[in-house]
Amino acid sequence: MLSQNLKESLLACSIIVQKRMDELLPRDFTDSKLIEAMRYSTLSEGKRIRPFLLMASAQIFGVSILTSLNAAVALEFIHVYSLIHDDLPAMDNDDFRRGRPSNHKKFNEATAILAGDALLTYAFQILADPATHKDASVRCELIQIISKAAGFSGMAGGQMMDLEKAEQKISKETLAKLHRLKTGELFMAAAESGAAIGRCGVYERHALRYFAHDLGLAFQIKDDVLDHRDISTNKFEIEEARHKKPKENASIVDVVGLENAEKQLKLLHEQSIAHLRIFGDKAKLLIDLAEFVIMREK
Amino acid sequence: MLSQNLKESLLACSIIVQKRMDELLPRDFTDSKLIEAMRYSTLSEGKRIRPFLLMASAQIFGVSILTSLNAAVALEFIHVYSLIHDDLPAMDNDDFRRGRPSNHKKFNEATAILAGDALLTYAFQILADPATHKDASVRCELIQIISKAAGFSGMAGGQMMDLEKAEQKISKETLAKLHRLKTGELFMAAAESGAAIGRCGVYERHALRYFAHDLGLAFQIKDDVLDHRDISTNKFEIEEARHKKPKENASIVDVVGLENAEKQLKLLHEQSIAHLRIFGDKAKLLIDLAEFVIMREK
Repeated sequence: MLSQNLKESLLACSIIVQKRMDELLPRDFTDSKLIEAMRYSTLSEGKRIRPFLLMASAQIFGVSILTSLNAAVALEFIHVYSLIHDDLPAMDNDDFRRGRPSNHKKFNEATAILAGDALLTYAFQILADPATHKDASVRCELIQIISKAAGFSGMAGGQMMDLEKAEQKISKETLAKLHRLKTGELFMAAAESGAAIGRCGVYERHALRYFAHDLGLAFQIKDDVLDHRDISTNKFEIEEARHKKPKENASIVDVVGLENAEKQLKLLHEQSIAHLRIFGDKAKLLIDLAEFVIMREK
Repeated sequence: MLSQNLKESLLACSIIVQKRMDELLPRDFTDSKLIEAMRYSTLSEGKRIRPFLLMASAQIFGVSILTSLNAAVALEFIHVYSLIHDDLPAMDNDDFRRGRPSNHKKFNEATAILAGDALLTYAFQILADPATHKDASVRCELIQIISKAAGFSGMAGGQMMDLEKAEQKISKETLAKLHRLKTGELFMAAAESGAAIGRCGVYERHALRYFAHDLGLAFQIKDDVLDHRDISTNKFEIEEARHKKPKENASIVDVVGLENAEKQLKLLHEQSIAHLRIFGDKAKLLIDLAEFVIMREK
């Protein structure tokens, strides 16, 4: 079980997720760059918010972290695949990710495309494996929840929308939809997967979905606020960014201004926590996670 | 049930697969090019060999085509995703596919990457759906078989190997491995999926896998033989190809010569059919399919 202290739990989660990812990923890369590229992006530093959200949600219903770990890792593989593909020159054209060269800069474009494809495919292989959950109907449910969230009506649809709207002036409502698809859907899938493993009732499952929805939106807005601060305080980076010409992602701060963005963050924080009331103390980790997402400085 | 006449059955299969793909794919593409791009490549003309192989394998064990249809469609979605990604400029750089502009030429690179990602993801969503098979353990088995065949140790691994070997002189053995990964694995997954839906014994399942292995290799060699003939008889196309500079895929004809390739085809034909003996008359469609694959003129 994760401890009730958020900082400790986040650290424990990131260590255990990292270890299981390392165990589940193939090792032999003497013959091909593909596996090296899969490992490169997966095992680099990350917050592991989505695995944590899945495991902490399942824990509300008494599920041990070992029972929810493989599902959490599969979800993180899907998140990492999306980062690799989003960074490609044809997409957001980012040369760096988490302070290191992005996958296509470290290897090449073809390898990055295939590494993303292979991680996405492997995630479903893991989810379908009896080692992930003893009940096949739960495994199928996880695959349905996660594939729907990652596909055309979720994350992939959101990335497409982001690319299509990149050149246009965008409304607050459109931006909210875009964020829900690009980030919110996978957050919701994380919480709902935890609920599915915990075999809770519909009411509890919806509460967790709504919480994750608000959390995902808050996470994205906070990212925009932090990016805005970084750009305002570091002219050198702006110059570099101009030189490199990465695609401009739609930012909530550009649309509603910094003050309104921070107001919205506060509102989402309160609203997200309200959904968790039915769980009482059992949701302490998730309540603290919501605060962490909003207060974080990076 | 499919009729025992191969030509009729292939036609019936391609019509019914096309119809179900059309039904399963989302329709609304007023808002985004993504769904239009998914439909563009999926609903274009294709042989539908893999769905046929899956359905004809399942039929040996008395499974109706309606019972195996969704799994067959999911498998075809994965085949189509691989074609879209393989055609990309960073990969094989092909401007045309089945006589029409390839996905990234019709739309753009970002859309093609996302359309492939979304088709791959959707395939697993379909496979996990109770409408595909009433038994969740069979659905999980299908997902395990197909994801393993499509991933780093199968199709994606084969495409990576093809790209890495593109500039090198390649041995007959390496080329056989490459073909097994790129084409053979998905053929084997098709036959094994049919076997899983048919809930047959291990012995029958292995026989079908071996058959599909030989059939996949024969299919690839025949493709190379046909390509070789086309290039030899059409100088205009060579000039065009040179101008366009698509990546040169490794060809068995280049490695062993035309005569040896045709000898190997004949051998694979006999060997593939030998695996089917245990099924007697029930495997007639598959026996005829093997002959069709080898005798086809396009």
